[in-house]
Amino acid sequence: MFELKNTTGRARSGVVRTAHGSMQTPFFMPIATKGAVKTLAASEVQDLGAQIILSNTYHLLLRPGSDGMKKLGGLHKLMHWDGPILTDSGGYQVFSLSKLNKTTEDGVSFQSHIDGTKITLTPEGSMAMQSVIGADIIMQFDDVAAGDSTRKRYKEAMELSLRWAQRCKDSYDEKQQLFAIVQGGTHEDLREESAKGLIKIGFDGYAIGGLSVGESRDDAFRIAKRVCEILPADKPRYFMGGGMPEEIVYYVSIGVDMFDCVLPTRNARHGTLFLWKQDPKEAVREALMLAQDGAADTRIAEALYQKIQITRSTFEFDQSPIDKLNDTVSTSSTYTKAYLRHLLKTDEMLGYRLATQQNLGFYFRLMKELRSLL
Amino acid sequence: MFELKNTTGRARSGVVRTAHGSMQTPFFMPIATKGAVKTLAASEVQDLGAQIILSNTYHLLLRPGSDGMKKLGGLHKLMHWDGPILTDSGGYQVFSLSKLNKTTEDGVSFQSHIDGTKITLTPEGSMAMQSVIGADIIMQFDDVAAGDSTRKRYKEAMELSLRWAQRCKDSYDEKQQLFAIVQGGTHEDLREESAKGLIKIGFDGYAIGGLSVGESRDDAFRIAKRVCEILPADKPRYFMGGGMPEEIVYYVSIGVDMFDCVLPTRNARHGTLFLWKQDPKEAVREALMLAQDGAADTRIAEALYQKIQITRSTFEFDQSPIDKLNDTVSTSSTYTKAYLRHLLKTDEMLGYRLATQQNLGFYFRLMKELRSLL
Repeated sequence: MFELKNTTGRARSGVVRTAHGSMQTPFFMPIATKGAVKTLAASEVQDLGAQIILSNTYHLLLRPGSDGMKKLGGLHKLMHWDGPILTDSGGYQVFSLSKLNKTTEDGVSFQSHIDGTKITLTPEGSMAMQSVIGADIIMQFDDVAAGDSTRKRYKEAMELSLRWAQRCKDSYDEKQQLFAIVQGGTHEDLREESAKGLIKIGFDGYAIGGLSVGESRDDAFRIAKRVCEILPADKPRYFMGGGMPEEIVYYVSIGVDMFDCVLPTRNARHGTLFLWKQDPKEAVREALMLAQDGAADTRIAEALYQKIQITRSTFEFDQSPIDKLNDTVSTSSTYTKAYLRHLLKTDEMLGYRLATQQNLGFYFRLMKELRSLL
Repeated sequence: MFELKNTTGRARSGVVRTAHGSMQTPFFMPIATKGAVKTLAASEVQDLGAQIILSNTYHLLLRPGSDGMKKLGGLHKLMHWDGPILTDSGGYQVFSLSKLNKTTEDGVSFQSHIDGTKITLTPEGSMAMQSVIGADIIMQFDDVAAGDSTRKRYKEAMELSLRWAQRCKDSYDEKQQLFAIVQGGTHEDLREESAKGLIKIGFDGYAIGGLSVGESRDDAFRIAKRVCEILPADKPRYFMGGGMPEEIVYYVSIGVDMFDCVLPTRNARHGTLFLWKQDPKEAVREALMLAQDGAADTRIAEALYQKIQITRSTFEFDQSPIDKLNDTVSTSSTYTKAYLRHLLKTDEMLGYRLATQQNLGFYFRLMKELRSLL
């Protein structure tokens, strides 16, 4: 349940309430793909500043599976996380990870990327699995068109997603909050049709899907802005799968409330770190102002961070803390760049964790400072 | 510097003092091979109960290298560990890991197992590298004979190690404490000759090397016991590279003070866990009594632990804590066996860490309870 608190231009702050606690918006959800935010224990994710985590229905459907998850009593219990959880519907992973997927009106048949098992996922099946997982917020099952699809394919996928949204609404567990996903690629008219159709059915929140899949940033910005203009003010808006810090600041400036992205965690594991460019409060204030003034995304990025490749030899003897400005992340002020580089160069697991903590801490701090300005 | 505090039969308790703090004996050293105890940050190793860590000169010589380590200001600074450190000499890894190693009177020439670089390590070179690392306790450079060597080879290696011990004594950094290594395979007379020769030179402590390399447990017990009878009471005794919990209890019962082993950490990463069989205090009391009564090692093991393979399907829905008796390890009482199994089956790094914490916590608790009985 969403409560809008304040608006600043198009940007907004509010609260999303769930049975497992509330999230102040705008917020960022770290991804616990298979029941763990990679490298981190639940308590550490919380300590870094996560208000909610996101997990992937597709991965949990493969392991531990629906029956397994039922016996385990749901994801909260399994991973010892007592805060809110959002699950995606499985649609995106079926499209991106599985082999030989085949879409019909009923749903999608695919082969597990783990062992080739043939599985069919339908809107009703996705709702059932997300109920078994016990997520607080669940996503509708949608048909995801590839980033380079024809208008015809985008239209078909959007229309099918709309029919599936109705089937999700008809079959979901009403103890959960169901969010719909606006589709339609980079075509404004398709997006409008999608958003209006979904609003007519009525959901607890609305997501902008099918972006961050290879389209230009300008296209993504344009579409997200258009969709936000259509979405109701009294429901949370979730930009799926994005993005870089400057993108998040932009989307917040146009009224998006929720984000998830693999970037901070995946980049971390490859040694790419986001370091604060200046005091976080100052950096975010400047970045938001730039976004609101319509500045180029590169300028927003410049105000916020340096992106460094910590494995480069530049950092071999750099005994400064990983990021002393990232003062909510204790490991980033304790351990040095030289040590983190050494750990990654020698493939020590601790390195992946220290890098993950730096980047996630950066994202959580970004959101916190954004909230303080709204 | 060693202070003997108490003896119970042949078993003993005491204190080893270093510039970075003291260790109560007997103690176990976790292995920070390349500057990290695998999966753990320095602060976590300390929280688990480590008094000292062990690192490998061979690995650090390859990365970051001698010059690199010098620029980095030593291992304490690099890994942010301010407790005592012991380093091995590199001899064992040269023998076990490197390619094309060739031993002469001067030292060993070998090729790095990472990039094939040709390196020569001598007693003086090992002392110099261990000085650059800044370890508190350093080991002599020794010639390590394979576990199935002929008596002739054992004798040669022992004699060469004795000559190298003198060269280490002549060249080490006297701010460090230098330990010698008794060699001689499973031949008591060679072991005696080695021990007596080393005692004559005079060291800060004595290690029993060249065991846990494939010989029978009876042979190892017999040799360690014989060596302990010869070693001076006022110097610490270090059994290198062993072993299972029941072996450690046995060696403590015959007067060994220091241990290191990859078993708890390596086993953990393969999902093999040591779980307490009963209340740790009671378990260790019973185990030590059995060892002192000359009971079979299998009976000592039985009193102490269950060894489980957590990845087995038996644990798929086991929602009990990883080990509720291991109450000094908070993660082992927080997370369930089912979760740990799920993490390992899905190759999530967190799993390797939770398992490592369980096993290392088990070993540290074992040593703590042993100390309380001596």
